Amino acid sequence: METRNSMKIFLILVFLSSLLQLCQALKLRFEGKNGEFRILQVADMHYGDGKTTPCEDVLPEQMPTCSDVNTTDFIIRMIHAEKPHLIVFTGDNIFGFDAKDAVKSMNAAFAPAISSNIPWAAILGNHDQESTLSREGVMKHIVGMKNTLSQLNPPDILDIDGFGNYNLEVHGIEGSKLANKSVLNLYFLDSGDYSTVPSIPGYGWIKPSQQFWFQRTSKKLKKTYMHNSNAKTSPAPGLAYFHIPLPEYASFDSSNFTGGRQEGISSASINSGFFTTMVEAGDVKAVFAGHDHINDFCGKLMDINLCYAGGFGYHAYGKAGWSRRARMVVASLEKTEKGGWGAVKSIKTWKRLDDEHLTTIHTQVLWSKSSAGARRKKPIGHQ
Amino acid sequence: METRNSMKIFLILVFLSSLLQLCQALKLRFEGKNGEFRILQVADMHYGDGKTTPCEDVLPEQMPTCSDVNTTDFIIRMIHAEKPHLIVFTGDNIFGFDAKDAVKSMNAAFAPAISSNIPWAAILGNHDQESTLSREGVMKHIVGMKNTLSQLNPPDILDIDGFGNYNLEVHGIEGSKLANKSVLNLYFLDSGDYSTVPSIPGYGWIKPSQQFWFQRTSKKLKKTYMHNSNAKTSPAPGLAYFHIPLPEYASFDSSNFTGGRQEGISSASINSGFFTTMVEAGDVKAVFAGHDHINDFCGKLMDINLCYAGGFGYHAYGKAGWSRRARMVVASLEKTEKGGWGAVKSIKTWKRLDDEHLTTIHTQVLWSKSSAGARRKKPIGHQ
Repeated sequence: METRNSMKIFLILVFLSSLLQLCQALKLRFEGKNGEFRILQVADMHYGDGKTTPCEDVLPEQMPTCSDVNTTDFIIRMIHAEKPHLIVFTGDNIFGFDAKDAVKSMNAAFAPAISSNIPWAAILGNHDQESTLSREGVMKHIVGMKNTLSQLNPPDILDIDGFGNYNLEVHGIEGSKLANKSVLNLYFLDSGDYSTVPSIPGYGWIKPSQQFWFQRTSKKLKKTYMHNSNAKTSPAPGLAYFHIPLPEYASFDSSNFTGGRQEGISSASINSGFFTTMVEAGDVKAVFAGHDHINDFCGKLMDINLCYAGGFGYHAYGKAGWSRRARMVVASLEKTEKGGWGAVKSIKTWKRLDDEHLTTIHTQVLWSKSSAGARRKKPIGHQ
Repeated sequence: METRNSMKIFLILVFLSSLLQLCQALKLRFEGKNGEFRILQVADMHYGDGKTTPCEDVLPEQMPTCSDVNTTDFIIRMIHAEKPHLIVFTGDNIFGFDAKDAVKSMNAAFAPAISSNIPWAAILGNHDQESTLSREGVMKHIVGMKNTLSQLNPPDILDIDGFGNYNLEVHGIEGSKLANKSVLNLYFLDSGDYSTVPSIPGYGWIKPSQQFWFQRTSKKLKKTYMHNSNAKTSPAPGLAYFHIPLPEYASFDSSNFTGGRQEGISSASINSGFFTTMVEAGDVKAVFAGHDHINDFCGKLMDINLCYAGGFGYHAYGKAGWSRRARMVVASLEKTEKGGWGAVKSIKTWKRLDDEHLTTIHTQVLWSKSSAGARRKKPIGHQ
């Protein structure tokens, strides 16, 4: 009897230890060699059924041999070239109308990420639910896939709008003073698909419930970072990922952005205030959207960079001769006086084109500790 | 011993019965005689210390005898003329800088409402906290005053921004089928004072936490109204009161509003999305702000009326020769086929000037059951 019980306890311990190992493996953390954390953004794969799904908007000579397989190949090449620590899929991962089976399409679309053994996260666009699964169904399937850190929704808020609102913490380097603190915060939000309000035409938007969750999460993260052991004087920087651009993406002209704007900004037709909410929170330094495939710029407004990734997928509208592309973001840690690793020092970005050499373009610094910027004084209002 | 216990029980019963009477008296309900509910809005009293506090921007001949007492007299005359069922004070109730003692100033400012025995509600502006009490202190004092229905904050949401976010239900006529349902919903929100975000200059705004509460409350009210006994097919209309106008108040030109616009729209310098949140909620038919004393228009945008009351108080900037004014809102019930009272049929508004005859101007219908308007179809977005 005693032997049996010992056996049971042993098995439980083995199970718990495996679970712990899995959690450790999926915990995001800066890399000790050069103090970097590298994120690959894949926007608008528009995956269909694989090799039978043709490409859109490629040169005539590319057409005969072009399919979803080109999208898959591009991911594999990007992973090989950039060795990211996290891959983020920012919606329209599958193009539902042309995917016979949502599960099969997603399994094929995310396969290169899964087999790379790199953690990955995904959010929804406006086309993911157009096949055989609802938005909830799509997100639930994603959450159950291998190596993903995607989550359905935060457990601490009831009735949140959308599916796929969550945050991920990126901890400091193993063994450093910040090993148990999140030094880079990633926010993922569901920007919806279409307006369900008859008097508001067009695309969806980030709702008050989601903003409230974001605000609360940001506050909590700041508190932990700034008030406990190894307290910092300013919050850890944050990055936000969602599919549909904000109306504020339309604030730029060619004089104040880096990259291209070749089509309109297809944001919601109304402003739901998320930009304001992020400015108030103060920690988000850059936002990364997809949705508009032939826009790929970053512009800075009130100390927040508003970036597109540019279209990645081949079964998606694009521009023949204008390469499909992906956006990289690399956060780097500062060296402490004692030679250890400290907090995040800078966040850089660039894009890679799907050409022969995966050409790097538009490298820019999005944020650095010293450039946090002079603050304006509060003006006195009218009476 | 038994007599003593009986005495105790009797006293407890008397106390409970008085409490019940008080609750009944403070419960808002449509009036049985003509099926109306009448709301007087008093915007920007800017009360100081009473008769020693001089007026601003009145004609030279008015100056020598003009003080806060003129504001008080105007309230008394309005109550007498309009016989409101509720008085709403929409902030800058006192002008903190010129009030030696916030409590004394508030006691004097609200005195006419209190002695009228009419229920009243107040919210904060951007000047109420500039005397001897904080915003929280001011709102707490208001909540404890006689005959007020003001509340500090909703009990069901933690960490809500501001002080004075609450809703009031106006029930159907006693004895009618809708006697126990709210047929008109009133929302009160704290629109803040000034931005606390260094990169955003200017006034405060309604935050995600408040919008989340509003959204949830609206949903709950709709559910009760539309799904329980005597279910209705459309939600009960709602009215929202807060101090600082929304950026959307700047959407109108003289061709599409009623009233005057004699100064800029002093909203927050950014858009925090509350207009979108109200459009999505669908029940709010009109919003009533103060803050800009010499704007007094109502304009309709996406089926929501955005209204100013126009300045009420004499110790506030204004325009000499342009009368101080107040806004009335009257909701009327429909008659059922059997001769009883039904749901709200229409909501009208007008203003009264503080002249010899309390002249009525700009009477208009804000909403009526039949004018709910044709809905646009959802367009198809880009790919």
